[in-house]
Amino acid sequence: MINIDELLLEAYNETPYPVGGHGKRNVQVLKDAIMAFDGDTMSDMYGDGPIIADFEKKIANVLGKPAAVFFPSGTMAQQIALRIWCDRKGLKRVAYHPLSHLEIHEKDGLKELHHIETVLLADKERTIELPDVLELKEDVSCLLLELPQREIGGQLPSYSDLEAISAYCREKGIRLHLDGARLFEILPYYGKTASEVCSLFDSVYVSFYKGIGGVAGAIVAGEQDFADESKIWKRRHGGDLISLYPYIISADKNFDERVGRMAHYYEAAVELAAMFNECESVVTKPAVPVSNMFHVHASMSYEKFGAALIASYRETGVGMTPFVRGIEDEACYFDISLGDRYEGVPKEKLASFFKALQTNLKEIADFDEFVARKL
Amino acid sequence: MINIDELLLEAYNETPYPVGGHGKRNVQVLKDAIMAFDGDTMSDMYGDGPIIADFEKKIANVLGKPAAVFFPSGTMAQQIALRIWCDRKGLKRVAYHPLSHLEIHEKDGLKELHHIETVLLADKERTIELPDVLELKEDVSCLLLELPQREIGGQLPSYSDLEAISAYCREKGIRLHLDGARLFEILPYYGKTASEVCSLFDSVYVSFYKGIGGVAGAIVAGEQDFADESKIWKRRHGGDLISLYPYIISADKNFDERVGRMAHYYEAAVELAAMFNECESVVTKPAVPVSNMFHVHASMSYEKFGAALIASYRETGVGMTPFVRGIEDEACYFDISLGDRYEGVPKEKLASFFKALQTNLKEIADFDEFVARKL
Repeated sequence: MINIDELLLEAYNETPYPVGGHGKRNVQVLKDAIMAFDGDTMSDMYGDGPIIADFEKKIANVLGKPAAVFFPSGTMAQQIALRIWCDRKGLKRVAYHPLSHLEIHEKDGLKELHHIETVLLADKERTIELPDVLELKEDVSCLLLELPQREIGGQLPSYSDLEAISAYCREKGIRLHLDGARLFEILPYYGKTASEVCSLFDSVYVSFYKGIGGVAGAIVAGEQDFADESKIWKRRHGGDLISLYPYIISADKNFDERVGRMAHYYEAAVELAAMFNECESVVTKPAVPVSNMFHVHASMSYEKFGAALIASYRETGVGMTPFVRGIEDEACYFDISLGDRYEGVPKEKLASFFKALQTNLKEIADFDEFVARKL
Repeated sequence: MINIDELLLEAYNETPYPVGGHGKRNVQVLKDAIMAFDGDTMSDMYGDGPIIADFEKKIANVLGKPAAVFFPSGTMAQQIALRIWCDRKGLKRVAYHPLSHLEIHEKDGLKELHHIETVLLADKERTIELPDVLELKEDVSCLLLELPQREIGGQLPSYSDLEAISAYCREKGIRLHLDGARLFEILPYYGKTASEVCSLFDSVYVSFYKGIGGVAGAIVAGEQDFADESKIWKRRHGGDLISLYPYIISADKNFDERVGRMAHYYEAAVELAAMFNECESVVTKPAVPVSNMFHVHASMSYEKFGAALIASYRETGVGMTPFVRGIEDEACYFDISLGDRYEGVPKEKLASFFKALQTNLKEIADFDEFVARKL
């Protein structure tokens, strides 16, 4: 029995020119960071010590907030931020997008551990806009905005909408929290500094393994009293480890190396999306990316699209994605984020890939026919 | 203003022969583990992948349980174990020692996140014994035993008491959970394997940074369905990181190197405690250690004891502790755990330290006098 998922993954892994991301998520990522580091440096100890405090201060400055706290994960960091705002207002209700990470990827930790009720704003196809907030019927302690909205291809509200939402929330006593897992990736499009964007928010979370490419880890930033309170919850969650330095060292190194390259990644996404949009039955969302990421949608079965991708990988050595997700019988998509790898893919290789893909999309009738033909 | 705490820490850090532990908690610990490791090895991904699964399986076998799950911290791991047993029984009440880690070091995470009520068994000076369990008035879902009881110098119940408690709990439908942060350290005294001790318990937690000396990390082991459920809660807590391998690699290396050396550490503790017990006004708890750790109590102010230690460190180059805790005006203590360092301290250095300490305990009247004399 031939499995399309396995074949696609295998074909992708064999391509000498994978296009997305920075590189493999292997142990070398940590080795590269740790090897250059002075072994005599003392570990952080349960959240204290220069190795963690210095990095927290550095990122607080970048984000324009008085204080920042390093967490092992964004899941932990964001639940805690929302919990603090709920406790402050005495109201355990928050609002966010129906495809928020907290709603779909965290096994309902926010509800099961913190008993916080959620109001879902906007529909699944678009970002939260000002009218969604104005029409909120129930009072909430906090509104969480994810910039960019990852599950819909990295879409963004307009910056003026963002400013209007921020002003409205301040007026109404609703705290605004930024899920900025990919904050640095959107700054070139907005043409703003991190500090400018963060000034619209009461609390901010950023990740160090997505666009930054570290091993893991997150920062939450805000006022000093907010940061202090978040450390108590970090202990309660079991995130106040005796040593977080493996993540901090790799976060710091990769942040320094990549935060200045976000404009390149964004431009790469715009360029690559345009090439996909020239293929028949294929469109990107957004049509023109606003960050380093986008989704590639194809109006065909995921088996057929997968077969066309596999054939194109094999013919050209260029890899786009290790998996495709079916939405319905004749619709599927994958997501792609651009990073360091893109520059290393020769332009003629990319061109040959898209030529092959266009041909394969026409010639491969379906997956069964492809399997019969190729094996 | 001279501060005793700072002086003691400084004097300790300058000694060429620190006696306790395995070595400094510096970045070199990670470097040593990671350097020898193949950089091409792929990261674990949110709890999956050979690098995490293989280690979980290895430790499950050591503990004699069907399944094991790696966690970033014991705080997270144990709250989750107790939560699962409470949910199974439909009763949010557990019993443990008044000095349990969950009661005094976790900012009440168990209560604040899981709303679990606690019954404190035994008094603060001794371990939980069979009569404490027999006299339990309220029903509980789970009884947690910490072996050894760290906050009272690493004391242990007799093994026959342990077996009787286990049998009673099984009869009464009370789950028995082992806080085995230092499980491997007690096996030489009990003369049992890890698997034999764990067979008395429904769930077991072990740590990889205490006696094992890794960077951080913990394992919880039990039946397969228990392990599966714990992974859901791990995700909810924010502990299901994209990459836990930095902790796993160092845990695995240090486990292999040290798990067979626990008898040496235990014997070292017995030897060293005997030397402390020969000093006037100084006693160890337990009088004869049952693991690699013990407490050193002195019936004098912590300033005076600290001054005598500082003088002895400076005269001999041997360091015992970086801090002393005052209990009341004329009582103080510190704790010490023996590890790799002990063998590297020449016996004549140790002897000279205890000679100096005995003299200094007699000659130093109090801290002020010491400061006036030495500076």
